[in-house]
Amino acid sequence: MITGKNYIGNTLKASGNVTHKTVNPKLNIENPTPFYEATAEEVDEAVQLAWSAFKTYRRISGEKRAAFLNAIADEILALDQELLDVYTTESGLPEGRAIGERGRTIFQLRSFAELVANEDWRENTIDEAIPDRTPLPKDDLRRTLIPLGPVVVFAASNFPLAFSTAGGDTASALASGCPVIVKAHAMHSGTAELVASAIIKAAEKTGMTNGIFSNIMGRGRTVGTTLVKHTKIKAVGFTGSISGGRALFDVASQREEPIPVFAEMGSINPVIITSKAIENRSEAIATTYAGSITLGAGQFCTNPGLILTVEGDKTQQFIKDLAEKTVAINPQCMLHPNIKSGFVENSNSVSSQTGAKVVGKVEGAIEANYAASQIASVMGKDFLANPKLHQEVFGPFSLVVRAENEDELIQIINGLEGQLTGTIIAEEEDYANLHDVIDALENRVGRIIFNGVPTGVEVCPSMQHGGPYPASTDSRFTAVGTNSIKRWVRPVSYQSFPNELLPTALKR
Amino acid sequence: MITGKNYIGNTLKASGNVTHKTVNPKLNIENPTPFYEATAEEVDEAVQLAWSAFKTYRRISGEKRAAFLNAIADEILALDQELLDVYTTESGLPEGRAIGERGRTIFQLRSFAELVANEDWRENTIDEAIPDRTPLPKDDLRRTLIPLGPVVVFAASNFPLAFSTAGGDTASALASGCPVIVKAHAMHSGTAELVASAIIKAAEKTGMTNGIFSNIMGRGRTVGTTLVKHTKIKAVGFTGSISGGRALFDVASQREEPIPVFAEMGSINPVIITSKAIENRSEAIATTYAGSITLGAGQFCTNPGLILTVEGDKTQQFIKDLAEKTVAINPQCMLHPNIKSGFVENSNSVSSQTGAKVVGKVEGAIEANYAASQIASVMGKDFLANPKLHQEVFGPFSLVVRAENEDELIQIINGLEGQLTGTIIAEEEDYANLHDVIDALENRVGRIIFNGVPTGVEVCPSMQHGGPYPASTDSRFTAVGTNSIKRWVRPVSYQSFPNELLPTALKR
Repeated sequence: MITGKNYIGNTLKASGNVTHKTVNPKLNIENPTPFYEATAEEVDEAVQLAWSAFKTYRRISGEKRAAFLNAIADEILALDQELLDVYTTESGLPEGRAIGERGRTIFQLRSFAELVANEDWRENTIDEAIPDRTPLPKDDLRRTLIPLGPVVVFAASNFPLAFSTAGGDTASALASGCPVIVKAHAMHSGTAELVASAIIKAAEKTGMTNGIFSNIMGRGRTVGTTLVKHTKIKAVGFTGSISGGRALFDVASQREEPIPVFAEMGSINPVIITSKAIENRSEAIATTYAGSITLGAGQFCTNPGLILTVEGDKTQQFIKDLAEKTVAINPQCMLHPNIKSGFVENSNSVSSQTGAKVVGKVEGAIEANYAASQIASVMGKDFLANPKLHQEVFGPFSLVVRAENEDELIQIINGLEGQLTGTIIAEEEDYANLHDVIDALENRVGRIIFNGVPTGVEVCPSMQHGGPYPASTDSRFTAVGTNSIKRWVRPVSYQSFPNELLPTALKR
Repeated sequence: MITGKNYIGNTLKASGNVTHKTVNPKLNIENPTPFYEATAEEVDEAVQLAWSAFKTYRRISGEKRAAFLNAIADEILALDQELLDVYTTESGLPEGRAIGERGRTIFQLRSFAELVANEDWRENTIDEAIPDRTPLPKDDLRRTLIPLGPVVVFAASNFPLAFSTAGGDTASALASGCPVIVKAHAMHSGTAELVASAIIKAAEKTGMTNGIFSNIMGRGRTVGTTLVKHTKIKAVGFTGSISGGRALFDVASQREEPIPVFAEMGSINPVIITSKAIENRSEAIATTYAGSITLGAGQFCTNPGLILTVEGDKTQQFIKDLAEKTVAINPQCMLHPNIKSGFVENSNSVSSQTGAKVVGKVEGAIEANYAASQIASVMGKDFLANPKLHQEVFGPFSLVVRAENEDELIQIINGLEGQLTGTIIAEEEDYANLHDVIDALENRVGRIIFNGVPTGVEVCPSMQHGGPYPASTDSRFTAVGTNSIKRWVRPVSYQSFPNELLPTALKR
């Protein structure tokens, strides 16, 4: 059923001769299907189709877009076991995770369907005319949000469903009225093709114009760069590394007509644990965090990669507990041999910096692409002095920083780059002293969690998934939750318009 | 009273030795006061002060920020005749305009004061916890908007009050909780200093921290570039030319931490007039548009620089009428000798392109910096073939394009760059045929006006002042109206927070 071809609109095409294969990381072998990188002509065809389709797609009723999104959800479910099998063989993730992530994907699609079934999401405002105002009459003015145009979505390596072909970026862009061209992630091209086939089926069943969706493949950066440079592409969604996201941001902002790039990139998600919290419940915190650090082999954007403590009597014991509990959890398979080798390299690099030491690490023989979880620690002054210690290690790793006192803790937070999340683990008696910590975190993160874990990103209106650079390229928008639709639209005002020519959302 | 010095926070400083003078364009002479360009140290000092002040300023109550904004309005009014005199001697604009623009400035300040006096503007959302949800409980999540940090505002040449020192950008940024550093426009440095003195007085009277406002001078691009590159600057507002705005956008997006630039730049504001409208009310339209084209010597961002018609029996007569009525209006003084020479050069450049011809132009002797209004015309096919005809002529100039038919008209609109506004002049019998025109305009502009003029930008929630590039660098935001506050903020989510630590806006 998987052909290895690109969906250029509703048609499977493969006129190029560059191919790649996906890898089964658990078995450490290549999967059989060769996937064809889209040619420059195929990329252009997809964009031209998207541009033509935009003219009608942006005008159809919210109910019709909702029906399309719900049909995508239905068709993804209809792929059933075949999808779960391809997902697990391309990602090394267990079937339970595949089912959970599919559930999230379906939920996102249906949430956006519900959101756009009526016109309220457009922040419509109406200022009525005041014809007898002096010195000048006031005209009738109405404002709504309209879609930007064709959008490119770059699929994430770590969420083959929920942040890939039919993931949050695609669902929100299609909901807004923007055609979408997905650049599939090379690591899970088969999953991408299957999900794309579900979208195309849904589009055909609900009568959508050919071109509102394409799925394009390629391993290097050529295809992606060509897409972002295309004058008929009007925005970009991306989830991945800082270097990848920044490269696309640079291409997009250096175009003759710059376009917005919503790149959700690196984050080490600092967790501040007060001395009192450690005194009162060290073991419980260690258990919770060992689970959070190793969840999904640590391959989450919100993985807690940095734990900040102020040195107290029980700090050392806490770090020891955390390390033991982390190491005790069975090693898990990572997404790809490249991800595994990156993890080994980056965790060793951090642990070998001056003053850093490994407190606990899974030792002994381990299967090829499985990750040896690791906890390291370092004193605050060494951390402050060395930006290499601030870098993300993608995988089950966390660095515990032992600050000398409160002041050093604040200094450390202020010295961090932008982050998706910050977490505070504290006791009620700490509250009065937390204002500086909260202040510092607010300047650095997009979401602050109290006595919880940063992993687990709820899909709801109050979710902010995005933070100051380099957590994301545009901290003013979220990549998760219904507000993420706002990335793909812009306001237009209508002045003194006759009722029959107003958009539906603004009619009298 | 005018010292020629920079306000570095509350203190007047001038340690540099580069100076410039402003010009009285009506008399065509230099005004006496030398203005000191800020040194690199002064610029840095202003930013460091702003950064320190941000810590407290972002936390004070909305009521206090409102009191500060209202005090600025009061202090500007207290400057009284002195301000009007400096304004007119530096801009060549009449006193009536100064009074009107001051009124708009005051209105903007008071509008933002009213907006932020309570916390509703922050788009607060609350998703309550569902502790017994399966399979996983849902945490309490709350989201609000917080200020980005110190902002640089580049003052506009064409609005010495309403889009300058205490104009819309400054008012909205201060309202949001961001400290502001204004880069004064060199053409009206005296007006800038006076208004800055009013802001400083208001800050002192209402107990604001030193550093929430600075006013910095300089003629070239050095000072501005230094400001935009500073790591503690978090956003930029700009009103001016495409080349100036793009240069700042490039600097900002190439920083290690890119920051948003809200540049409101060039626009020729196409006006589509149907043949039926010309048949029925040619003379009335010509009268209205002669007024709009010459308003304020044509020095408005929303000046109608392009009029699109479909050739009909009365088109030629309409163009002749428009030209006659435009030329009949008394020439007005432009803002500066450089603006005048730019106008002469650019209007001549457009009129001398292949197929273009001057239909009417003020002839004969004219005072030094006064503008000779001009109407030119060209056939649609020549316009389509020559991008030089699409360029903005800043001043009392409009190019009438005569399209062969509807299709060519649509092609012309689709071929335009992004614009602030588009206007449709049509009869009721045209309505059924306007869908393609509206469709094309929606993809090109931020505001569409029906049977009116684009000049006159209402300050209200439904106003969109901004459009696709190059009308502005970020079409998703407006530079006018209360929504312009959204440029200076970003969302933060609070998860499972104790009530006492939540920001005021989100408390239970």
